[in-house]
Amino acid sequence: MGKRSDVSVPDLEAAGNGLLDRRIFLKQGALLSAGGLVAAAGGAARAADPPGAPGPGAGMSDYGGPAPYESKVKRTLIRSQAGTTGSGASRTPLEMLEGTLTPSGLHFERHHSGVPDIDPATHRVLIHGMVKRPLTFTVDALSRYPMVSRVHFLECSGNSASMYGAAPPAFTCGQIHGLVSGSEWTGVPLRMLLEEAGIDPRAPWLLAEGADAAAMSRSIPVAKAMDDALLALYQNGERLRPENGYPVRLFLPGYEGNMSVKWLRRIKVTATPTMTKDETSRYTDLQADGKALMFTYPMDVKSAITRPSPGLRMPGAGLYEVSGLAWSGAGTVSRVEISADGGRTWADAALSAPVLPRALTRFRAAWKWNGAPAVLKSRATDSTGATQPERDKLIALHGSNVIFHYNAIQAWSVSADGEVKNVYA
Amino acid sequence: MGKRSDVSVPDLEAAGNGLLDRRIFLKQGALLSAGGLVAAAGGAARAADPPGAPGPGAGMSDYGGPAPYESKVKRTLIRSQAGTTGSGASRTPLEMLEGTLTPSGLHFERHHSGVPDIDPATHRVLIHGMVKRPLTFTVDALSRYPMVSRVHFLECSGNSASMYGAAPPAFTCGQIHGLVSGSEWTGVPLRMLLEEAGIDPRAPWLLAEGADAAAMSRSIPVAKAMDDALLALYQNGERLRPENGYPVRLFLPGYEGNMSVKWLRRIKVTATPTMTKDETSRYTDLQADGKALMFTYPMDVKSAITRPSPGLRMPGAGLYEVSGLAWSGAGTVSRVEISADGGRTWADAALSAPVLPRALTRFRAAWKWNGAPAVLKSRATDSTGATQPERDKLIALHGSNVIFHYNAIQAWSVSADGEVKNVYA
Repeated sequence: MGKRSDVSVPDLEAAGNGLLDRRIFLKQGALLSAGGLVAAAGGAARAADPPGAPGPGAGMSDYGGPAPYESKVKRTLIRSQAGTTGSGASRTPLEMLEGTLTPSGLHFERHHSGVPDIDPATHRVLIHGMVKRPLTFTVDALSRYPMVSRVHFLECSGNSASMYGAAPPAFTCGQIHGLVSGSEWTGVPLRMLLEEAGIDPRAPWLLAEGADAAAMSRSIPVAKAMDDALLALYQNGERLRPENGYPVRLFLPGYEGNMSVKWLRRIKVTATPTMTKDETSRYTDLQADGKALMFTYPMDVKSAITRPSPGLRMPGAGLYEVSGLAWSGAGTVSRVEISADGGRTWADAALSAPVLPRALTRFRAAWKWNGAPAVLKSRATDSTGATQPERDKLIALHGSNVIFHYNAIQAWSVSADGEVKNVYA
Repeated sequence: MGKRSDVSVPDLEAAGNGLLDRRIFLKQGALLSAGGLVAAAGGAARAADPPGAPGPGAGMSDYGGPAPYESKVKRTLIRSQAGTTGSGASRTPLEMLEGTLTPSGLHFERHHSGVPDIDPATHRVLIHGMVKRPLTFTVDALSRYPMVSRVHFLECSGNSASMYGAAPPAFTCGQIHGLVSGSEWTGVPLRMLLEEAGIDPRAPWLLAEGADAAAMSRSIPVAKAMDDALLALYQNGERLRPENGYPVRLFLPGYEGNMSVKWLRRIKVTATPTMTKDETSRYTDLQADGKALMFTYPMDVKSAITRPSPGLRMPGAGLYEVSGLAWSGAGTVSRVEISADGGRTWADAALSAPVLPRALTRFRAAWKWNGAPAVLKSRATDSTGATQPERDKLIALHGSNVIFHYNAIQAWSVSADGEVKNVYA
């Protein structure tokens, strides 16, 4: 491995400490194979004809699962209330995944009173309040409405909260940032249902309430509901998974995940925000001066390098692909830059097409690691021009009382022996 | 249900027998709710506050699965050799899914000798033949190469073969057309590996061989390998599922599925096609005159209405969304038209964005069914200008000895009582 890592590539350098030009990922990838760069990266070797299977394999199945060899690829469960089974969160193992979608079985969870068992035959969604005619919908009725399908990320506003701590948490990328996942959501535009109910054109707010025992409830601006909100019925092609709101959830693209109320049972059109327990006792952003920001809806532009990241050891100097995810609740990711020298110099990463609004965007960069200690960072910019701040600037702005909306630049250190660690740098 | 189905919508009509203009799906969907059309579709009703959960729900899980209420959503298994467990196919239940992606657990299967149990720690991929230096790759080595992520369909060339039969098969949409599925595939461009091995620039062919007991083997044009072929490692974000080639498969976008060799163990660069058993005894297209077409690689433009379709009863006259999938191995779906009068008149369906090359494309149309018997059809056109033929024209061209590459227009009849059937019409 790495036996040709001494190859010289000065004409491809895009930033300090070995970051290469993103043109290396062009389809006409002769750049990359020129000079044996690829062999340096991959550790290919001469060898004999490899063996095949000893005999006929297993049969077919009506619903498949992952390979047994992948049993470590699972969500990390963190219970927020000792002694309870349903309250807490589980996180997507971002560092073990690739591409832009999250398998539904690994989508993060955040529950306030567990996952209710809801029979779709008896479930109902009520729309009432400031409407001309209150309406109740069965799941079958909703399923007959015209639908739309869109790929979007969903991120808990408490994602990455451990990074507000005084010392960098010794967690994996997924354990830190894994309260974000990406799916294709299919459902009925909420606008249609509100118009059918005859929503009062002066009404500025909705209350959305879940059918879980916590009756998780949030106030939603009508403007968002009329823009791109869905009543989602399908996730990644099939009906919602129970932990993601089966049989129907609200979905508000780009907004903090908690507002996309799962197991939706009721939408009430209101003249004011309802000030529910879920938006007063929590999901507010306590500032350094003791005041709290409320209704901070869109998730800010953010990114993280998933490979390399803590727990994935680098086996020696040579060429590596740096791969990661970027997203923004305000729009489309327009640029991701990578630094291999702790932020002194930056190179543009390649973005995997199609880059979709309010969706996870895969970025990739080539890094020729010289084997010396280094600090890797990624910095995303979105279509509104917003860019991730350094951690100290985020803390200076909002203090460290807050546990929500952390979106600072993530730094990973790489030691000479290839170990990757979370650092404040 | 359907109580306001008598609403008049002459200004929205786009084709005969109730097909409405696709503008109905625009975001500014006031068109749709004007005049109570939506209530006609959805069967919304006034009702009281629906009940919530009786108490705390279930806990979190490290890898989730579908809701128990969805247990009917599964692949249909058809064994091609009685007495074997591994030879045959399982089909995606297209009529139960929505959006453009297939959950990996429901991706179709086609095996020639079952699913081999391959340990990724010992698996190897050999590249040899007309190359300067034969190379062997471990899975770890492949995983360090630069990757690309792309959404593509995969379709078995034997998909829809039952439609060559003299009588229309009484199957569901998935049982007929479910040897097609859509995923996000992530892997290493094959071009990189061939260039690293020093492929002879005059070599026109490759042999790709699987590590299953059948050693499934196909000849691949080098031009395709150098264009967009991948060695796929990830499917829908996670490592390949066993039945889809774990730990590594070839992926040839748009080509008949059999060529995307699963459990890839070997690529040999050759001067001629190898004429393997899998491309001589099968995967050739026997014509009416007794001659057979070989190397018919790209899957043709095709579509099917998934909702309504056989097995999904229509509960009464009123407004319905007609939803389906279209795809083409030759490029991008540029247009899908729908007929509700057996092909006499056609209306454009709306295509769900983004429309990606060689990917499943969701189309949607609004249909105001008057309750009388009707025949629904969909007709897709791709970016090369190719359009689906009627069934009789396909048979006239190729005869009915062939069992591969069926892509004719699908007709579903709807009876007055709402039953949907597969018909030749």
